Amino acid sequence: MAANRRFLLVRRPQGTPVPEDFELVSADIPAPPSGGIVVRNHYVSLDPAQRGWMDDAPSYMPPIPLGDPVRATTVGIVHASDNPDFTPGQWVMGLNAIEDYSVAMPGGFTMPVDVAAVASPSNFLSALGAVGLTAYFGLLEAGKPQPGETILVSGAAGAVGSAVGQIGKIVGCRVVGIAGGPDKCRRLIEDYGFDAAIDYKGKDVETLAAEIAKAAPDGANVVFENVGGMVMEAELFNLALHARIVLCGLISEYNSEEKIGMRNLWQVLARRAVVHGFLIADYADRFAEGGAKMAQWLAEGKMRIDEDVQEGLENAYDAFMRLFSGANTGKLVLKIA
Amino acid sequence: MAANRRFLLVRRPQGTPVPEDFELVSADIPAPPSGGIVVRNHYVSLDPAQRGWMDDAPSYMPPIPLGDPVRATTVGIVHASDNPDFTPGQWVMGLNAIEDYSVAMPGGFTMPVDVAAVASPSNFLSALGAVGLTAYFGLLEAGKPQPGETILVSGAAGAVGSAVGQIGKIVGCRVVGIAGGPDKCRRLIEDYGFDAAIDYKGKDVETLAAEIAKAAPDGANVVFENVGGMVMEAELFNLALHARIVLCGLISEYNSEEKIGMRNLWQVLARRAVVHGFLIADYADRFAEGGAKMAQWLAEGKMRIDEDVQEGLENAYDAFMRLFSGANTGKLVLKIA
Repeated sequence: MAANRRFLLVRRPQGTPVPEDFELVSADIPAPPSGGIVVRNHYVSLDPAQRGWMDDAPSYMPPIPLGDPVRATTVGIVHASDNPDFTPGQWVMGLNAIEDYSVAMPGGFTMPVDVAAVASPSNFLSALGAVGLTAYFGLLEAGKPQPGETILVSGAAGAVGSAVGQIGKIVGCRVVGIAGGPDKCRRLIEDYGFDAAIDYKGKDVETLAAEIAKAAPDGANVVFENVGGMVMEAELFNLALHARIVLCGLISEYNSEEKIGMRNLWQVLARRAVVHGFLIADYADRFAEGGAKMAQWLAEGKMRIDEDVQEGLENAYDAFMRLFSGANTGKLVLKIA
Repeated sequence: MAANRRFLLVRRPQGTPVPEDFELVSADIPAPPSGGIVVRNHYVSLDPAQRGWMDDAPSYMPPIPLGDPVRATTVGIVHASDNPDFTPGQWVMGLNAIEDYSVAMPGGFTMPVDVAAVASPSNFLSALGAVGLTAYFGLLEAGKPQPGETILVSGAAGAVGSAVGQIGKIVGCRVVGIAGGPDKCRRLIEDYGFDAAIDYKGKDVETLAAEIAKAAPDGANVVFENVGGMVMEAELFNLALHARIVLCGLISEYNSEEKIGMRNLWQVLARRAVVHGFLIADYADRFAEGGAKMAQWLAEGKMRIDEDVQEGLENAYDAFMRLFSGANTGKLVLKIA
């Protein structure tokens, strides 16, 4: 008889998560509560944000309770329904967890998706999901790039970063990407059309700042920040006057117990820059607009968003850690059914 | 025969400035260069920003060259003129230096001031100068407070901070000030009309954050930042959603060689806040508007801006250090003639 495998958080990670912070258990498949549904998850989104949710610190969402499965966006099929708006067999996406079956209640983020319109249902976790929408609204609304301006993107070979770079080119900007290692840098130029790529590995802040200055001699008008730490520090020494910094993620900080934050904050004042804390949830009422635009660019061949699809719920820990080792390129997804 | 005493920067301070970083010398009174003027400085503005100009680091102005007098805004009388727009005997203000006589060229910041309209010419360095204009444009334009919102001000008993609090009350906000010591806190309430005052002295970030939470239970919609460091860290744990942080100064950092910056930057992302690097120079074309409004509020008795007037160019070092010891209350000015 089928069971519900669940990937539980059983201990708050100190720094880098270790296998003992989690436990894979088997439970009964739940029945839909009154008015709710049960979703058979097929694809699970693995995101840096999940690391933050594991900490017991004030943030935009409550921490994942210990003993609960790790919160995750998933795409799956309605398995059972006690809600007239959802029919068994129908594909949906929602904020669920790393588990085979999730209970979802209406009024949450659960929504139907049209899998016939995409190459893979996982696309709703990448190009047409939070990744594409974050790049779209983060760059265009918070960053407000003007044609001819220079955009600096950190974590540029990642899912969001590579989309930001491509949107930057579409709107007529010069785009400089920062990534780790020569292979990722090559992909920035060849696969995603960046104008310049900088490898941050093995470089101190001063060296990295000098390389950015060479690639962006007039400074960056927009910084799209996915990384934080010393990479961001080097970027901030290269701000154009009145630069906009889109603070989208700080992946270099999530596993460190001592937070660096923004050490050379003074540059923000000196260049009269604006730092925008950005979270895609604030644009929920415009998701249709952003999704349509991303779909159009994909169809026109102006945009590619790669996926790094790992397999097997039993491999959840190893798959998740690919985010922090720099191993993954493109949107990291775990296929569990 | 009269001479020109000049307070020179002769060494870049390492951390807190020491007397040996400066030298008081006597030189000849300069003659006006072609098209320029010579100003007899009477009042010299002493500001935290000057500490930044002493460092050899990228900023919004070039560092003060070693061997030059310390750059300062002054109010004084035209001593000699080779420019038809300026007449000897006329009062002017401008960006000059800590010295008896400064050479000024047109096209700089030099402008005539009407001393008959004010209680003291030093007012052009405080209420009607950069202090009042910084509070006015910083709070209203960068902070965009809405009636009923909560404004959190650090360095609240300082010249800019106390003006920000009073403007906050004028526009219908709840205003919470953070200052050092019970006497300053008492003045926030009694002299400047703040709704609540918090003494940061001797408290760690956690304790300070908890006290802010008590005074601003719904969080701060606007943070007007003059201090930085651990005070700012405590504030950032109390941001309302979509808060605006006006980054006006970071006085706690200027003498420290290890910059803390914004350690809990994550809060900016989690609360989707916006950090505005603010410099009054960006509003130069609206100074008349801001100055008129400040003058009106002063005349109506809605605003008071205190001055801490120290005397004697020979006391420049001791006077300047009052900024960092917390000794001064109100705008620090050095009267040299």
